Amino acid sequence: MTDKDALVLFMPSGKRGRFPVGMPVLEAARQLGVYVESVCGGRATCGRCQVSVQEGNFAKHKIVSANDHLSPIGPKEQRYAEVRDLPDGRRLSCSAQILGDLVIDVPQDTVINAQVVRKDSDGRVIERNAAVHMCYVEVEEPDMHKPLGDLDRLKTAITNDWKYENLDVDFHLISQVQSILRKGEWKVTAAIYKDEENGDRPRIIALYPGLKNEAYGIACDIGSTTIAMHLSSLLSGRTVASAGTSNPQIRFGEDLMSRVSYVMMNPDGREGMTNAVREALNGLIDKVCADGGISRQDILDAVFVGNPIMHHLFLGIDPTELGGAPFALAVSGAVHLKSSEVGLPMNAGTRVYMLPCIAGHVGADAAAATLTEGPHRQDEMMLLVDIGTNAEIVLGNRRRVVAASSPTGPAFEGAEISSGQRAAPGAIERVRIDPVTLEPRYRVIGIEPWSDEPGFAEAAADIRVTGICGSGIIEVVAEMFLAGIISEDGVVDGTLAARSPRTLQTGRTFSYLLQDGEPRITVTQNDVRAIQLAKAALYAGVKLLMDKQGIDHVDRIGLAGAFGTFIDPMYAMVLGLIPDCPLDKVKAVGNAAGTGARMALLNRGYRREIEETVSKIEKIETALESKFQEHFVFAMALPNKVDTFPELAKVVTLPERKATSDDGGEGGGRRRRRNRE
Amino acid sequence: MTDKDALVLFMPSGKRGRFPVGMPVLEAARQLGVYVESVCGGRATCGRCQVSVQEGNFAKHKIVSANDHLSPIGPKEQRYAEVRDLPDGRRLSCSAQILGDLVIDVPQDTVINAQVVRKDSDGRVIERNAAVHMCYVEVEEPDMHKPLGDLDRLKTAITNDWKYENLDVDFHLISQVQSILRKGEWKVTAAIYKDEENGDRPRIIALYPGLKNEAYGIACDIGSTTIAMHLSSLLSGRTVASAGTSNPQIRFGEDLMSRVSYVMMNPDGREGMTNAVREALNGLIDKVCADGGISRQDILDAVFVGNPIMHHLFLGIDPTELGGAPFALAVSGAVHLKSSEVGLPMNAGTRVYMLPCIAGHVGADAAAATLTEGPHRQDEMMLLVDIGTNAEIVLGNRRRVVAASSPTGPAFEGAEISSGQRAAPGAIERVRIDPVTLEPRYRVIGIEPWSDEPGFAEAAADIRVTGICGSGIIEVVAEMFLAGIISEDGVVDGTLAARSPRTLQTGRTFSYLLQDGEPRITVTQNDVRAIQLAKAALYAGVKLLMDKQGIDHVDRIGLAGAFGTFIDPMYAMVLGLIPDCPLDKVKAVGNAAGTGARMALLNRGYRREIEETVSKIEKIETALESKFQEHFVFAMALPNKVDTFPELAKVVTLPERKATSDDGGEGGGRRRRRNRE
Repeated sequence: MTDKDALVLFMPSGKRGRFPVGMPVLEAARQLGVYVESVCGGRATCGRCQVSVQEGNFAKHKIVSANDHLSPIGPKEQRYAEVRDLPDGRRLSCSAQILGDLVIDVPQDTVINAQVVRKDSDGRVIERNAAVHMCYVEVEEPDMHKPLGDLDRLKTAITNDWKYENLDVDFHLISQVQSILRKGEWKVTAAIYKDEENGDRPRIIALYPGLKNEAYGIACDIGSTTIAMHLSSLLSGRTVASAGTSNPQIRFGEDLMSRVSYVMMNPDGREGMTNAVREALNGLIDKVCADGGISRQDILDAVFVGNPIMHHLFLGIDPTELGGAPFALAVSGAVHLKSSEVGLPMNAGTRVYMLPCIAGHVGADAAAATLTEGPHRQDEMMLLVDIGTNAEIVLGNRRRVVAASSPTGPAFEGAEISSGQRAAPGAIERVRIDPVTLEPRYRVIGIEPWSDEPGFAEAAADIRVTGICGSGIIEVVAEMFLAGIISEDGVVDGTLAARSPRTLQTGRTFSYLLQDGEPRITVTQNDVRAIQLAKAALYAGVKLLMDKQGIDHVDRIGLAGAFGTFIDPMYAMVLGLIPDCPLDKVKAVGNAAGTGARMALLNRGYRREIEETVSKIEKIETALESKFQEHFVFAMALPNKVDTFPELAKVVTLPERKATSDDGGEGGGRRRRRNRE
Repeated sequence: MTDKDALVLFMPSGKRGRFPVGMPVLEAARQLGVYVESVCGGRATCGRCQVSVQEGNFAKHKIVSANDHLSPIGPKEQRYAEVRDLPDGRRLSCSAQILGDLVIDVPQDTVINAQVVRKDSDGRVIERNAAVHMCYVEVEEPDMHKPLGDLDRLKTAITNDWKYENLDVDFHLISQVQSILRKGEWKVTAAIYKDEENGDRPRIIALYPGLKNEAYGIACDIGSTTIAMHLSSLLSGRTVASAGTSNPQIRFGEDLMSRVSYVMMNPDGREGMTNAVREALNGLIDKVCADGGISRQDILDAVFVGNPIMHHLFLGIDPTELGGAPFALAVSGAVHLKSSEVGLPMNAGTRVYMLPCIAGHVGADAAAATLTEGPHRQDEMMLLVDIGTNAEIVLGNRRRVVAASSPTGPAFEGAEISSGQRAAPGAIERVRIDPVTLEPRYRVIGIEPWSDEPGFAEAAADIRVTGICGSGIIEVVAEMFLAGIISEDGVVDGTLAARSPRTLQTGRTFSYLLQDGEPRITVTQNDVRAIQLAKAALYAGVKLLMDKQGIDHVDRIGLAGAFGTFIDPMYAMVLGLIPDCPLDKVKAVGNAAGTGARMALLNRGYRREIEETVSKIEKIETALESKFQEHFVFAMALPNKVDTFPELAKVVTLPERKATSDDGGEGGGRRRRRNRE
């Protein structure tokens, strides 16, 4: 490196270095570890290595950058621009040479196939370092003097041009190498699969005549209720299509444990459920391929996540062991396989990667969500909760991460609730109760106005109001508490029956009438109890993890999954479902599991990151912790018998804490103000 | 190491070292790299690690060795001896501790399963270092506090006990690990596959509940005419069963080139031939399993060799390219695959290894023969010839090895010969001609006496004498030459018709009458020409290689294959089929290819050895060498126009060299004496 070397800064990575004048930009990027895609290996034919120059005086970096600090467009680049249409300002970094100081912009969305529609699942830009790498090579023709086989000369070419040593090849290609090489007139593109740096030898898994300028992967979250799949370009990183479907295993059992029971009671149960989920996946693959306008053959890599039972059933493993202590996983580590081994025919060389499971009830989906939200990458103590029949709970930061699951049961999904139902048109999803009149108003899925707004009745005539969904039940119980209809112990106050016709006596307990019509929708004492049990289980699990971490509050909360997307964090906190936290630090993280799968698809570095993280996560088995029961009992109260919610109190006035029988105190006033609508 | 350490010498390896008193013998062997099998990992249950003590004063080694220099038999060893019957004098090296200086004998034939019959293919003892290693482990039971999966705990146990790091597992085992671990009550035996030291990660390819004390492999030479298979124990190294069959591809074409033509002319030709050979292999597998009393499931590794066309057809590769210049192999390097990928269902984890091919017409069979005979391991210059439709020729020593093939055509196999036939009952295989009377006597396959001995006529009435096989045609032409019936130019001397009724005129040329009966068996001028052309091609190829090596004689000659087993080296030399060499240095090496396959099966070190050797072998394409034609013309003469045979002349008096028309000389006398019957 001399003073004559040019200073080059790559954006957005911010990596910089000095390089000799005349060096192609691509080579400089490689030396710095800046990811710039290239399929053709610097022959100016694939167009994947496009960059642009940011012109100007970047005083902070001491760089004056100008377009003419790159070599002029040469004949090869010119030909590419004419044939394939190079956008204004874009240069091929394999051809453009460094002549002076530069700020180089590496676009994250180099569109080569114009028909590709941008449809990113969450707009997140994932740095690419896929496990599958497309490598164009020109292979020596056969020569009687050097009788190396076709495959052997192909390997030599790849080793020379792309530095993959000691290559192996998928067996299905052995009988095809001959004809592909000849069809491509000794110019071919090999798909090289190399996941772990210190793992198996790099392998040729697909081979195409000529330049093959695209390869795709799928990332998929197999949820017990829904399955979501994204199709992404392994070269540009962009999501080309997304699709979802309900998990057809539902016909064998609504929740996880009923599916395990089905396996235990039916000789073909495991096989039936494995086939069902694989069939659904094949349907989704067809759909994303049709949407993306590509062939299944072009999918070369796939990442799947799911909870442990979905994970096992997808792989064809009997999940019975997960149905009882010690909840033994058949396999917890990451799994590598070929898509053909799990009945998903794509390319014969297509690989599948499954993220590791954290524990018997904390699956690869929780691992993927952890990868996405990255508690292990941050200083703040983050709580990550995925609420389902079992809540998967991860709590930690850069220093330490702990995880557990808690048996919340299906109440949050509307099951075990008298008027509960799935989140579908006709379900009450939002509820407010006037603390004076005790009259409710609510909002129904599929109906725009609230129940007390004009137009509601007309709409409700079309879409019948049929029940309460998960987020609705959270809100109505929380509002009943805030309105004084239920006590902090969760008892529906029968004395209110005198004040409002909404409080009904049913046997020895009381209910709250939400809709007096067909059907009649009430919240019964049993409903309240079911929610209390569920939220107490979740909260007790969280508290155990907080104990392990030695903390009394968390810095931020991520609520994963569909349920997390729809519940109002404030009401969740009023119920004491989650611990106190500034409300602006509580966010729904959507399908964090699906995003984590996509990260692992596009960058094998994330695979290593989550494997290492999972191996370090401390797993807490709630059933074995003596304090769980104590936390659970305290958490039966609303919001909690002992824990305070100072952050929540800043936005909503909680009913004054009633004296417990122990402290002999007297119940305080029931009136409360809400600071927040 | 202190003076108190004991000196231990292992035989037959001769490796020695000092070890602390108290160390188990097995551990000492491991530290020295002495191969002692062990499946149970030192638990005194598998019995594989048996050794014995050689007692006495070994002055040369300064060792006084005695049985009581081993610790007394302890309870575990005692239990093994009672339950499994430990032979007298044998000790389990995992339990026996070193107490003093010792000479330890490692038996090469530790028989554990008594029903196994010794039936070694060639008695050769092959040091074992198989690619498949049986590892017994005791796995931790599942624990809610440490929720590692079953497979993950299994891997941990193997890593701890057997030092295999970063283990992978075959996908088919993932769904079985659970039940196998429970069936074995957390004690299992894993078959670990690790071929190349720097190759892929070690893999679990099979898993058995409890102690699995045996594993088998097959070694197979796929010849164009016959297929030979050996079943060997991967643990003891012994050959348990052998079987052979004719190659059913014969129905598509007798010789290699007619099979290639069949592929070129029939759309399903390649598939038909691939299926045919795989079917035959499956039949052989059934046969060796039945003979060995084992299940196909117990075969975990397999090695196949064959000439390039057999190699390609077995793998499902179109061999058409091998039918014409530049004779391009689809793959020349060694190939790893699973047996299920080539339609040979055994264990789901069974691996297949194919040796590398040397060149377009010098196959994996020649590589295997090279491995067996080891020209690259010796100082002497060795010629290794496998005679078939194409002769595969390897010539070299420790410093340099060269190889070529020569298009001998099918004459040596009895084709293109008027009375030629396969080596089968009724075929003349040995011939002597009285130089005075010109009367022949001969020996026929299936008939014990010679034709001039008592009992021949009776036997010949049962087994009709129907033709001449390859070795017979070599002998009769050589004897005709020695008797003066044909000249050194190969012309049948018509002037002898006056002297003997055995010389017949047929048109413009003459024949020699071998059997005047039904059928009439003659050697025609065309027959002699066919043999001349074939042997000239072979010899010219050999000479080219000798030119490359810069030598005028070879030190030893190995004749591989069935043909090499049956021809008499002296007659081959009289014909000038092979170069001059002391006759005791010419030997039939039998199925050297099959033996090489068995070596590669039992010791992965031999795989690396032959891969490296093949990569270094210089390949000579005879068609491209200008001197080939010249060598060929000289080699048309008997034994050769220009080359002398001084070693041959020591045992047989060759006819005096006739002056050629060039030198204007006159034909010398034709009488000659034979020094050898």
